[in-house]
Amino acid sequence: MKNNQMTKPIVISAPEPRSIDLIFEEHSKEKLFSQYDIIEVEADKIDSLDAPTLAQARYILGQPPLSLEVLANMQELRCIFNVESNLLNNMPYEFLFEKGIYVVTTGAVFAEPVAELGLALALCLSRNIVEADAAFRTGDELWGGDGNSQATLLSRSKVGLIGFGDLGRAIARLLQGFRADISVFDPWLPPSLLTEADVTPTSLEHVLTSSDVIFVVASVTNENTGFLNADAFSKMKPGARFILLSRAEIVDFDALIKAVESGHIRAASDVYPIEPMPKEHKVRNLKGFIRSAHRAGALDVAFKKMGEMVLEDMALMDRELPPMCCKRAERETVSRMRSKPVEIN
Amino acid sequence: MKNNQMTKPIVISAPEPRSIDLIFEEHSKEKLFSQYDIIEVEADKIDSLDAPTLAQARYILGQPPLSLEVLANMQELRCIFNVESNLLNNMPYEFLFEKGIYVVTTGAVFAEPVAELGLALALCLSRNIVEADAAFRTGDELWGGDGNSQATLLSRSKVGLIGFGDLGRAIARLLQGFRADISVFDPWLPPSLLTEADVTPTSLEHVLTSSDVIFVVASVTNENTGFLNADAFSKMKPGARFILLSRAEIVDFDALIKAVESGHIRAASDVYPIEPMPKEHKVRNLKGFIRSAHRAGALDVAFKKMGEMVLEDMALMDRELPPMCCKRAERETVSRMRSKPVEIN
Amino acid sequence: MKNNQMTKPIVISAPEPRSIDLIFEEHSKEKLFSQYDIIEVEADKIDSLDAPTLAQARYILGQPPLSLEVLANMQELRCIFNVESNLLNNMPYEFLFEKGIYVVTTGAVFAEPVAELGLALALCLSRNIVEADAAFRTGDELWGGDGNSQATLLSRSKVGLIGFGDLGRAIARLLQGFRADISVFDPWLPPSLLTEADVTPTSLEHVLTSSDVIFVVASVTNENTGFLNADAFSKMKPGARFILLSRAEIVDFDALIKAVESGHIRAASDVYPIEPMPKEHKVRNLKGFIRSAHRAGALDVAFKKMGEMVLEDMALMDRELPPMCCKRAERETVSRMRSKPVEIN
Amino acid sequence: MKNNQMTKPIVISAPEPRSIDLIFEEHSKEKLFSQYDIIEVEADKIDSLDAPTLAQARYILGQPPLSLEVLANMQELRCIFNVESNLLNNMPYEFLFEKGIYVVTTGAVFAEPVAELGLALALCLSRNIVEADAAFRTGDELWGGDGNSQATLLSRSKVGLIGFGDLGRAIARLLQGFRADISVFDPWLPPSLLTEADVTPTSLEHVLTSSDVIFVVASVTNENTGFLNADAFSKMKPGARFILLSRAEIVDFDALIKAVESGHIRAASDVYPIEPMPKEHKVRNLKGFIRSAHRAGALDVAFKKMGEMVLEDMALMDRELPPMCCKRAERETVSRMRSKPVEIN
Repeated sequence: MKNNQMTKPIVISAPEPRSIDLIFEEHSKEKLFSQYDIIEVEADKIDSLDAPTLAQARYILGQPPLSLEVLANMQELRCIFNVESNLLNNMPYEFLFEKGIYVVTTGAVFAEPVAELGLALALCLSRNIVEADAAFRTGDELWGGDGNSQATLLSRSKVGLIGFGDLGRAIARLLQGFRADISVFDPWLPPSLLTEADVTPTSLEHVLTSSDVIFVVASVTNENTGFLNADAFSKMKPGARFILLSRAEIVDFDALIKAVESGHIRAASDVYPIEPMPKEHKVRNLKGFIRSAHRAGALDVAFKKMGEMVLEDMALMDRELPPMCCKRAERETVSRMRSKPVEIN
Repeated sequence: MKNNQMTKPIVISAPEPRSIDLIFEEHSKEKLFSQYDIIEVEADKIDSLDAPTLAQARYILGQPPLSLEVLANMQELRCIFNVESNLLNNMPYEFLFEKGIYVVTTGAVFAEPVAELGLALALCLSRNIVEADAAFRTGDELWGGDGNSQATLLSRSKVGLIGFGDLGRAIARLLQGFRADISVFDPWLPPSLLTEADVTPTSLEHVLTSSDVIFVVASVTNENTGFLNADAFSKMKPGARFILLSRAEIVDFDALIKAVESGHIRAASDVYPIEPMPKEHKVRNLKGFIRSAHRAGALDVAFKKMGEMVLEDMALMDRELPPMCCKRAERETVSRMRSKPVEIN
Repeated sequence: MKNNQMTKPIVISAPEPRSIDLIFEEHSKEKLFSQYDIIEVEADKIDSLDAPTLAQARYILGQPPLSLEVLANMQELRCIFNVESNLLNNMPYEFLFEKGIYVVTTGAVFAEPVAELGLALALCLSRNIVEADAAFRTGDELWGGDGNSQATLLSRSKVGLIGFGDLGRAIARLLQGFRADISVFDPWLPPSLLTEADVTPTSLEHVLTSSDVIFVVASVTNENTGFLNADAFSKMKPGARFILLSRAEIVDFDALIKAVESGHIRAASDVYPIEPMPKEHKVRNLKGFIRSAHRAGALDVAFKKMGEMVLEDMALMDRELPPMCCKRAERETVSRMRSKPVEIN
Repeated sequence: MKNNQMTKPIVISAPEPRSIDLIFEEHSKEKLFSQYDIIEVEADKIDSLDAPTLAQARYILGQPPLSLEVLANMQELRCIFNVESNLLNNMPYEFLFEKGIYVVTTGAVFAEPVAELGLALALCLSRNIVEADAAFRTGDELWGGDGNSQATLLSRSKVGLIGFGDLGRAIARLLQGFRADISVFDPWLPPSLLTEADVTPTSLEHVLTSSDVIFVVASVTNENTGFLNADAFSKMKPGARFILLSRAEIVDFDALIKAVESGHIRAASDVYPIEPMPKEHKVRNLKGFIRSAHRAGALDVAFKKMGEMVLEDMALMDRELPPMCCKRAERETVSRMRSKPVEIN
C-alpha cells in the first residue's frame, strides 16, 4: 500500500498568520491529510518536536523560525512553504541553499486580485467614478459631458509600471484589450525578458515623465525605500494617475499627498505607511484620491489557491522534481527584501 | 486647380445638439472647410436654403428634418451624417433608401468610453470600491480580508452581454485579458457572427441565470421596452452584478431598485428613466448601487472622433466609394429604433 | 401551424457551379427543405418558372441571370445569394438596390482556409521547406545551419498586406502570435478602420519597399489590373517573400517570374493567369517559387459553411431583419469588380 | 575608472561547438570584450590555465569538462553558460549547486524558430503543400477542390502538445490566432501552470486519441526513450498529423514510418535516429511525410540571441542579481536529461 500511515511523508504545519482552513478548500484539505502526515505546531515551538519527526519531515508549511541546529537534524527536508508571502529573515538561508532545501512563497496568488483592483482604481481615477457617485448621492451630480471635464480613456494610453514581477505581469495581461503602450522600469530584470512580454523596458525617468497612468508594483528592498518622492511626482505629467499597489515604503507618502492636493496628479492607494491609518489623517478626505484599506489581495479565492499551489509542488517534489508553482527565494535577493509580512489575513 | 471654390462639394451643416467645434479638432475643421463649401443653417430652416444650394449639396452634417419635397430637389445628395447617434424619425427613409442616399450615425465613437466605464463599474461592484472609499473617509473602513466579504474576481468569471453592437464588442475586447467566459443574447444577430467574435451565443434565460456579471448594452426598440423586469432580476444568481449602460427604457427601473434593495444583486447604471433624476429619488441612497449621471460616452475625445469619421467617409464617397466608418441606417430596423436623442452633449 | 407547406417561403435554387449537396451539411439541408419550399431550376431557365412562383419567391439561391422583366414580377424577393463568390454582371443592379433586394455573397467562407494556406506558403518560403524536402528525397539535403543560409523568421517581421477584406483580416488574425508589424495598403478603406484592426494603414510604395513578406489579397477591379509589375517587384527588399492569393490579374505574372528567376525575391502563388497552366510553362520548374493549383479555398468545410450562412441570413430576413452573415453587393463597387467566377469547385 | 583592464571580471571562453563570432553580433562582441577580460581556451585545456586566472574567473562561456579540483580553485566563479543547449554530464553538479554556481543554457533561443518550422510543417501536412508542389512541377497537379481531398484546417482544430517547455509555449503562442483547442501532456509540470498558460493539462492517452495535430516537443530523459511507439501511433485519429521537433529518441522511428506508410497518419520530422540519415533509408521517399534535416533551430538570428542572453545575465550577476534570461540546470533533473549535444551548428 503506497500511502499507509507508516510511509506517509511528514509535513510540519505552522502557517500563521494563515491557517490550514484558510488556505485549503475542503477537498484539498482532505487530500493533504490523506497523503501526508500533518504535524501541527506553533511557529515558535518547532524545536520542541521530537528528533524522529524532525529527521523525517519532508516539508514545512509556513515559515517558522529555524535555527541551524534544528535544520541540521532535518535530513529529509525538501521545502519550506511561506504561505504569508513576504520572506522572513528567520532562518540561515545559506545553509538551506547549500543543501538544496527550497524556501518558496505562494504570493503569486495575489497578483490577479491586486491587478484587478489596480485596474479598477485606474479607471475610477480616469473617469472620476467615486467622487461622481458621492455627488449623485447628495444631488450634486453633473450630467453628460458636464461631468467629464477631466475624463480620459485608458485605451491606447501610455501606462508605466514600476516593477514587473507577478503583479506587473498580471496588470499587463488585464490591459491586453486596452491596447495601451506599456513601459516598464524594473532594475532586477533584463530588457529582453520585458520585450518578450510585449512591454517596453525603460528608465524610471521615462516612466515618470511619459506615462498617463503609473502603477507601482515593486517589492520593497533595501535600495528603493522612499525613492518615489516629491521630485519624482513633480516629473509626472499634469493629470497623470498614480496607483500604489505594492508597499507604501517605496513612496514618500507625504509628498504623494501634496502632489494630489496641489491638483498636479490624481492617485489611489491600497497600502499606507501606517496600517490602519490614524483616524484624523488628511488622506481620509483628500480630493482626487481613492482609498483602499490593504484589501487588494486578501480574497478567499486567492487564499484557497495557496493550498492548491502547495499541493501541486509537494506532488512534484515527492517525485524528485523541482517545485514549479511557488516562487523560490533566491540567494542573491533574499537578503534585500524588506516587505513586512501582514499580521492579519 | 482641384479644390477651388467653384468646384468644392457643398456640405449643409446642421449638427445640433453637437456643433462643428465640438466634433472637429482644429486641424480637421480646417480640412473640412478647405475641402468643402460649408453652408451652416439651423436644423429647421433647411427648406429656406436656395434651390441651387440644395440641388448641389452632397452631404448633410446633422440630421435635420427633411421633407420629401426638399429631398426631391437634392439631386446630388449622397449622405446624411447623424452626429447625435440616435436615428430620428424626421425624414422619408424609404425615399432615401431607394435613391441610395445614406443616413449614417457616428455613435460608434461612444463604444470605447462607455465600455471602459462599464468595466470600471463592474470591477467597483465586484470589489466594493465606492462604498469602501466612503467608509475610509469616515474612519469606518475594514482592513484586509475583513473588507472583502463579498469580493469576487472578474477574471475567469461568467459574463453575460445583452446586446452585441459596437458597445458589446468593445466590452468583449476590454475583457480579453480577463479570460472570462462571455455569453451573449442578441436576437438581431446570427449565432455564427457571435462565435466568430469569440463569444457564445445564447438565450436571454441563460444569460440571466448563469452570469456573474451582466452588461446591458442593447438599443431600445419597439420590442424590448421594460423587458428586464422583476421576473428577470429574480432569475439572476444571488450576488450577481448588473451594469446598465445603454438605455433605461429596457429595464423596469423600479424592479431593478427592489432587486438591489433586497440584497439579491448589486447594480450600477449610467442611464435613468428620468434625466436628471428627481432630487429625492431613492436611487440616490441605494446601497449596493453605483450611480453615473449619463456620462459614460460624452468625452471630448469621443466627440472629436466623430469629425474624423465624417471626414473619412466623405473622402470615400467623394471617390464614389461607399462609407465605411459610420454606421448605416438599415431599411428593416430604422423604424424599430426608439432610443431618444440626447438634448445636451 | 407556422411552417406548413402552404405558407413556406419559396426559395428558387440555381446555385451552379455549386450544388445544394456541396454547400449544405445533411442536417442543414433538411432544415432548408423543411422551412422553405425549394424550387430547383437551371440558372438560365428562371424565366420559365410560372408567374405565381416568381411572384412569391422570397430568396434565390445562386446568382442566375435575371432580366428586368422577370425581376419586376418578383414582388416578394428579398435576397439573391451568390454562393460562388464573385459578383456577376448579369442582372440590373440599380433596380435591385432601389427595391432593397439584397445581392449577397458567401465568399467570406474562403478567408480562413486561404489565409492558412497563405501563412503556410510564407513560412515555407522563409524556411525553404519545399525545396529542402525535395533535396532530402534525393539525398542532397543540407543538415543543421548549413541548410539555413537564407532562412528568416516571420515572428517580429514586417508584413505587408495589399488589400484588407475578409482575407486580409484572416491573415492578420493568424499572425497574432507572431507579433509581426503589419502594414496595409487598401485604397477602398479609411485609415481609422485599419488602425482599429491593429494594422498600420500605409501607401503601396511603403508596403513594397519595407516588407519582409507581402501577401496579395486584393480583389481585381477595373483599376488594379496588372498594377504589381516589374517596377513594383524591383522596389521590394532583396529576399522578400511575395505570396499571391487573390487573383493573378492583379499581377504582371511574367514580371513576377523574372523577379524570382533573378533571385531578387522568392514567391508563391495559388492563382495563375491561365488555369490550368500550360504543361510546359516555365513557372513549373521555377526555383524559389512554390506552386499551389488554385486550391487555397476549395475545402469541403468552407463550402458547408456557405449553407450555414445562407440559412442564418434567411432566418434574419424571415424576421424582417437585415442579413448579417453574407456580404452585400454595394451600389458603388459592384460595377468595378472584375474577378472571374470559378468554373469548377 | 570602473572598467579598466586591472579590474575587468574574467570570462573563460570555451564555447565549442559554437564560437564567439557565431553567437555575438559585432557590437555585442565589442561589449563583451570591453567589459570583460576574455581568456579563450580549448575546452579540454581549462586545467592548463594558471591559478590566478582560475581563481579570479567569474564566468565560463561554454560547458567544458571541469574536475572537482579545478572547480575548487575557482572561488569567484558565478556561472557556466552552456551555449550549445544540452546539458553535459562533465562536471560535478552537486558541488556547483552547493556553492550556488549556476549552470545555465541558452537553448530558449531555439524555441521560436523551431516553433515556426513546426507550425509550417503542420500546415503543410494539413494542406498537402509539399507533394502538391512536386506534382505541379511534373504537370500532375490537381486543381481546386480536386486537390483538397484530405485537406483540413488548423483553425479551431484540436492540437496536442507532448511537452510544454519553451518550445511548447512558443507553439502555443503562434497558435493564438488559430483559436485551436490545445491539450498538453507534460508530466514534469503542475496542472495549474498549464491552465495559467491557457492550455489544457491532460494525459498522454487523451493527447493521442483526441488530437488532430500532435507536436512532440519534449526533451529526452532517462524515462521517455521510445515511449511513442506502435501502440501510441495506433491510438491516434486516422488522418492525424504528427510533427516531431525535439529529439528522435523519444519515438520508435520504425513504428512511426509504418504508421505513415499504412496511411493511418501523416507526419513530419526535423530529427532522426541517425543524423545524417543513410542515403538509402526508406524515410527519404515516404509518402505522407515531410523531411527537414535538423535545421529547425539553427538560424543565425537564434545564435546571435545567445550572445545577448549571456550579456544580459552577466550584467545581472555582476550586480549580484540572479540570472534571468538563460535557463538554469536543476538539481533534480540535470541527471535525467539525455539529449545529445549537436556536433555541428
